[in-house]
Amino acid sequence: MLGLMQSQQLLISSLIEFADRHHHEGEIVSRRVEGDIHRCTYRDIAKRSRKAANALDQMKLGFSDRVATLAWNGYRHLELYFGVSGSGRVLHTLNPRLHPDQIVWIANHSEDQVLCFDMTFLPIVKAVHSRCTTIKHFIALCDADKLPTDSGIPGLQSYEAWLAPQSDKYDWPEFDENSASSMCYTSGTTGNPKAALYSHRSTILHAWAGALPDALNMSARDSVLPVVPMFHVNAWGLPYSAAMTGAKMVFPGPAMDGKSIFELIESEKVTFAAGVPTVWQMMLGHMQQGDLRFSTLKRTVIGGSACPPAMITAFNDVYGVEVLHAWGMTEMSPLGTVCTLKNKHIPMNADEKMAVRLKQGRAIYGVDMKIVDDAGAELPWDGKAYGDLLVKGPWVIGEYYKGEGGSPLVDGWFPTGDVATIDADGYMQITDRSKDVIKSGGEWISSIDVENIAMAHPAVAMAACIGMKHPKWDERPVVVVVKKPGAEVSRDELLAFYEGRTAKWQIPDDVVFIDAIPLGGTGKMQKTKLRETLRDYQLPGV
Amino acid sequence: MLGLMQSQQLLISSLIEFADRHHHEGEIVSRRVEGDIHRCTYRDIAKRSRKAANALDQMKLGFSDRVATLAWNGYRHLELYFGVSGSGRVLHTLNPRLHPDQIVWIANHSEDQVLCFDMTFLPIVKAVHSRCTTIKHFIALCDADKLPTDSGIPGLQSYEAWLAPQSDKYDWPEFDENSASSMCYTSGTTGNPKAALYSHRSTILHAWAGALPDALNMSARDSVLPVVPMFHVNAWGLPYSAAMTGAKMVFPGPAMDGKSIFELIESEKVTFAAGVPTVWQMMLGHMQQGDLRFSTLKRTVIGGSACPPAMITAFNDVYGVEVLHAWGMTEMSPLGTVCTLKNKHIPMNADEKMAVRLKQGRAIYGVDMKIVDDAGAELPWDGKAYGDLLVKGPWVIGEYYKGEGGSPLVDGWFPTGDVATIDADGYMQITDRSKDVIKSGGEWISSIDVENIAMAHPAVAMAACIGMKHPKWDERPVVVVVKKPGAEVSRDELLAFYEGRTAKWQIPDDVVFIDAIPLGGTGKMQKTKLRETLRDYQLPGV
Repeated sequence: MLGLMQSQQLLISSLIEFADRHHHEGEIVSRRVEGDIHRCTYRDIAKRSRKAANALDQMKLGFSDRVATLAWNGYRHLELYFGVSGSGRVLHTLNPRLHPDQIVWIANHSEDQVLCFDMTFLPIVKAVHSRCTTIKHFIALCDADKLPTDSGIPGLQSYEAWLAPQSDKYDWPEFDENSASSMCYTSGTTGNPKAALYSHRSTILHAWAGALPDALNMSARDSVLPVVPMFHVNAWGLPYSAAMTGAKMVFPGPAMDGKSIFELIESEKVTFAAGVPTVWQMMLGHMQQGDLRFSTLKRTVIGGSACPPAMITAFNDVYGVEVLHAWGMTEMSPLGTVCTLKNKHIPMNADEKMAVRLKQGRAIYGVDMKIVDDAGAELPWDGKAYGDLLVKGPWVIGEYYKGEGGSPLVDGWFPTGDVATIDADGYMQITDRSKDVIKSGGEWISSIDVENIAMAHPAVAMAACIGMKHPKWDERPVVVVVKKPGAEVSRDELLAFYEGRTAKWQIPDDVVFIDAIPLGGTGKMQKTKLRETLRDYQLPGV
Repeated sequence: MLGLMQSQQLLISSLIEFADRHHHEGEIVSRRVEGDIHRCTYRDIAKRSRKAANALDQMKLGFSDRVATLAWNGYRHLELYFGVSGSGRVLHTLNPRLHPDQIVWIANHSEDQVLCFDMTFLPIVKAVHSRCTTIKHFIALCDADKLPTDSGIPGLQSYEAWLAPQSDKYDWPEFDENSASSMCYTSGTTGNPKAALYSHRSTILHAWAGALPDALNMSARDSVLPVVPMFHVNAWGLPYSAAMTGAKMVFPGPAMDGKSIFELIESEKVTFAAGVPTVWQMMLGHMQQGDLRFSTLKRTVIGGSACPPAMITAFNDVYGVEVLHAWGMTEMSPLGTVCTLKNKHIPMNADEKMAVRLKQGRAIYGVDMKIVDDAGAELPWDGKAYGDLLVKGPWVIGEYYKGEGGSPLVDGWFPTGDVATIDADGYMQITDRSKDVIKSGGEWISSIDVENIAMAHPAVAMAACIGMKHPKWDERPVVVVVKKPGAEVSRDELLAFYEGRTAKWQIPDDVVFIDAIPLGGTGKMQKTKLRETLRDYQLPGV
């Protein structure tokens, strides 16, 4: 017997319509490519999303056709989030930090029909457009009078001229909530990039889960700054959760430097910001120099890579900002765990609470996880046993777009490629990426642990630990370090710094100083490149 | 093109399995019928839910068969929430406050196969069992040694003896998430009772929506006391949202008096409590007498009837507890609106905020609402225009069980039977029930407004306003008042109290003092009965 509740598909169009009816006055503030600050409301976004949907209809774009973006976080990008997906097309957020050849490969693989881009990326589009064989329409996200006349891009039009003639009324189509809504390619370390293809259903369920008090805790009283890019797993779903809850949104545009981010937080009374550790490091650097303090920021969610303990401490102790460690993946929409405390932790002292906060956190409802050994047997949740981390849930992929790479699942579970422990209270801690673990004499050494100790040294700006071949131990760790500007530390001083902070055999064999560690398109350290750079390196005494 | 996320039905069994894996240590504390305090964990509840599911299988109960309960809020009732629905049966929470004849009618109408009841309700079951023609199994929610041997109820067994032989392992079945999960009859004022038949999907979506920061704001740090009964629209969905978030649960059992509730809040460090105004009135009365204060309670959600402003003020100003006004219906699972503030209200002063808090609140995402005039035309959201309130959403009914009463929808919207205003920020305020509005000289007078003014008088414990036939004005308001014990106020004094607090023509024509106002099974004032009591009443001067 079926229940007798109203049948309603979960569609992304319902988010912007809800925001329009119930939070029409909610503010959307964007720093633009031009550098100025643009202000509008959810009602404006709703109207312009409908205009975009009408414009796509007029282009005769079919259901599920891909519309790509190369864009910063801003109101026009937000309008496309709703206009493209809401009208039944698939929003494909291209990562502009990729190499142009990769962009061409991905645009052709996804068969994009339209490309909307910020003027920052005009040089990229100039360089790639002739090789993107499926794209029929190029739209520059700018005013009509800012459109370059000599770009050489055929049929290039400005977004504002494209929207202008359209009606702001639109009957959003109703369709199966399992239909594709958006896609995001992962910067795979092996093989070609592969795409996660999200559905309306997975997006809405993830938006609910993401807004919960124990996840991103979003309400209509928040002013939310997604520093995490909208081309990086839909900015962790924040644009959807914000429309769902009526939160004010603040977009940084291209200005991701510490000063710009800090000033935006202060001027727009931001209560909640989300981003990867590298961005926060720049901001904290700026604040330390100027002895600055936050006046409204209450919490930050840090994900994308493991957050160095020193950063959690700085936010908590110096600035009074709650740091939520989070973990997820492109293949997980992306939220899997967030580190918030439980009822049982309330009586604990600050140190005991910090020990919990250092972990990546608990699974949010909708995601289940387990750790397994090499034979696939489930390992105990004791905070000590570590193994491959597997996940499942309605916003975890079942397969990649076009079936690339075959079925990724193992008995219905998605293998994350992370190695982790899970403690008795369900708190997961990543000990390493499977491929980054250093295997020394039959034991595993976590590259992240080695990096975190180096990062705690006052002279170290960034650290990467990689395993080097060793005739006796198989591999031994070496730490590659970028010093802070003007700061000094010697190899021996840094190695001495490890004494007492980790087991003797886990102390790296050597320190390599370097000017910069290569970062990937999503701000993560690229250890593969680092290994190439160091291919002639020899371990001392070997 | 469909998205490529994992396909997973939203099933109630996943809630208790999630709580078992990720919050197994979370506490469930219950005051029992016996008067003692029982403590267990989510893991215990999960194990015993699986035992209950196995026991139902052994009884050869079919998919969607109804299992009824006549029970207080407690751990055994919670186990049945998951065991019954999770195994594919329909949980039917009977309201023990109904007249036995109504219980018989409802049990036969729903075709219950099993009835589980607290020992408190043994007299009811003794009185009705022979007339409940479909019930094959009677189970007393008690230990084996507490089972009465002379009940006369055929085949009566104790819940503990029923569970004992069963395995605590169980493979929850997977099925269509639109399958029926639970049902609740409304105490209809006209015609026979009608049932809302909830689905697994509607229940899970409602649990997500209900746990959001702008709804009930539930986290793993909360200790939650549902005073609202589990037989009243599934305790507003709290058992589901609690399992979803890992919140500690505290159940009051049969002890709903002010002293018992207060003591439970203090001893179990309750942070959040939910109930109808009458319960809170008893508790505040107890606290005033003993000059008591809360040490952990942070917020209460008040719904079921409009909350008198004086109560909101008392909670906020005297006890430092945030009061969230909420509104919903059995037909809405039940949450529709909750009154939480927006970003724009942050700079407002306390009085301005209180003016917002008095309203029933904003729609939560998933629910849409509108107000219409007699012709069905949508009215403006200006906080002044009032009309019939209509709602829709995936946890709002499409029709009643067995199609009773025909299709209730009007163009896809469910008419709530409430009259309301909606302001420009989306805050809805109930001005009256459609049937309680007093129509005086072509204008409408809100019975609730008249009652709230009386309730603000220090000598008044409870007030009900009803319309009396008037030869000239069609109807005129009369306020029926129960005085506080030992307090005194005269008719003329109370009428004088209205001066300056409302428009002259809205002041009642008379005051009728009465010992008690009849309350229905869910604690609401029964104005129909009151009108019967006063059928010989004559308006003064008529």
